[in-house]
Amino acid sequence: MIKVVILGSGNVATHLTKAFVTSKKVEVSQVYTRSNISNKIEKIDYTNDLNNLKNADVYIISISDDAIANFSKQLNLKNKLVVHTSGSVAMQDLECNARKGIFYPLQTIHKKSKLKFKNVPICLETESEKDYILLEKLAKSISKKVFKIDSEQRKHLHLAAVFVNNFTNHLYKIGNDICNEKNVPFEILKPLIKETANKIKYITPEEAQTGPAKRKDHKTIQKHLSLLQNKQQEIYNLLSNSISNNELTK
Amino acid sequence: MIKVVILGSGNVATHLTKAFVTSKKVEVSQVYTRSNISNKIEKIDYTNDLNNLKNADVYIISISDDAIANFSKQLNLKNKLVVHTSGSVAMQDLECNARKGIFYPLQTIHKKSKLKFKNVPICLETESEKDYILLEKLAKSISKKVFKIDSEQRKHLHLAAVFVNNFTNHLYKIGNDICNEKNVPFEILKPLIKETANKIKYITPEEAQTGPAKRKDHKTIQKHLSLLQNKQQEIYNLLSNSISNNELTK
Repeated sequence: MIKVVILGSGNVATHLTKAFVTSKKVEVSQVYTRSNISNKIEKIDYTNDLNNLKNADVYIISISDDAIANFSKQLNLKNKLVVHTSGSVAMQDLECNARKGIFYPLQTIHKKSKLKFKNVPICLETESEKDYILLEKLAKSISKKVFKIDSEQRKHLHLAAVFVNNFTNHLYKIGNDICNEKNVPFEILKPLIKETANKIKYITPEEAQTGPAKRKDHKTIQKHLSLLQNKQQEIYNLLSNSISNNELTK
Repeated sequence: MIKVVILGSGNVATHLTKAFVTSKKVEVSQVYTRSNISNKIEKIDYTNDLNNLKNADVYIISISDDAIANFSKQLNLKNKLVVHTSGSVAMQDLECNARKGIFYPLQTIHKKSKLKFKNVPICLETESEKDYILLEKLAKSISKKVFKIDSEQRKHLHLAAVFVNNFTNHLYKIGNDICNEKNVPFEILKPLIKETANKIKYITPEEAQTGPAKRKDHKTIQKHLSLLQNKQQEIYNLLSNSISNNELTK
């Protein structure tokens, strides 16, 4: 049985806690939170006192990225394994005299979503091989997809995630705006959005590329530009050029 | 029984033909194609002679956008219902003395994909209400999602599709490139890509937006920019600004 203490009660912390609770190989010894949370998980010991942390094999800090370094300074967990769940914070930013590690679940986690953790990739990093084995065991207890990713790789992975998640979602928003303007139900685009994401399961994004910019169909591109407002026009231009240039450099 | 003649043998034409063949309410009387196609569909009459077209209720032109206008001039189908399947070509670009219409299936159609047509939205337009009823019957024989969309709306819909499909796919490609550079398996991002597309089923893209630009987390944005090359940097900047400005104008 791996004993864990979760430090935090945000989205990631809550989903992680719930996932661990269902695993037979893990015991959630405690959850630390400063907030008064209404939806407490049954049978879990909650504390708001950092001096009162229980003994555990792994301490998981799951709070906002900016707060991690300062928060870790307050911990008195000498020689314990302390990890955080952030994609963008380096392992060495944990400022405590503990063994350090990363337990980064790469997924967009929304309060409303019924996330199945077994499909969420978890990226691990530790200082020692021994700690890696422990963390891997913990990760595999809730997910089928566990990867060894160092801090340098994780920085780039997090950046790539911004492109495929945050920026992609913004393109959905622009699509939605364009539809709204002409009273076209956004609904019509949803199967296309789904299939676009689905396609790259069996071919690369490069192979999947279609559209006027790929075909260098300047007539359609000009027609499209004439329908757009300033900011949208700029985005259309830049992304079309990027697709076309990509074709040129092949 | 609705009799159709398909004019074309590209991806869309082939998927459409196959879908109609499985419908009990439709008879594919003929397929016109100039190419020598190897994978002919069984029991279908193929012709390469436009003067030899069979009698049908609907003639569906499914060829490349640029070729539609000129191709339609060659048709001698007076008073017949002639439609095309393009998102970006206006109904009036059909230059023949026939009854005109649009039968636009909005989906990214790849040769390798096993597309279920019943989930593909089909956008219809006709000159007369009577023809609309016929086209609607035809569309409903293969799809559950049939929409009345006029040429002005269709122009915008096609444009929105470029954002959510072509441009989104290009962002996947950039994500892939960033991963490759550091030997990170792109695999890790696929569940995130899937969930990003999935999320907007139950919340709007605006509600789904997360990330450094949304949070105005300038520290992370600067870190990310320092990791990127010129073109990628430009795209990161423009999309981040667009997300942030969107927050300001709320």
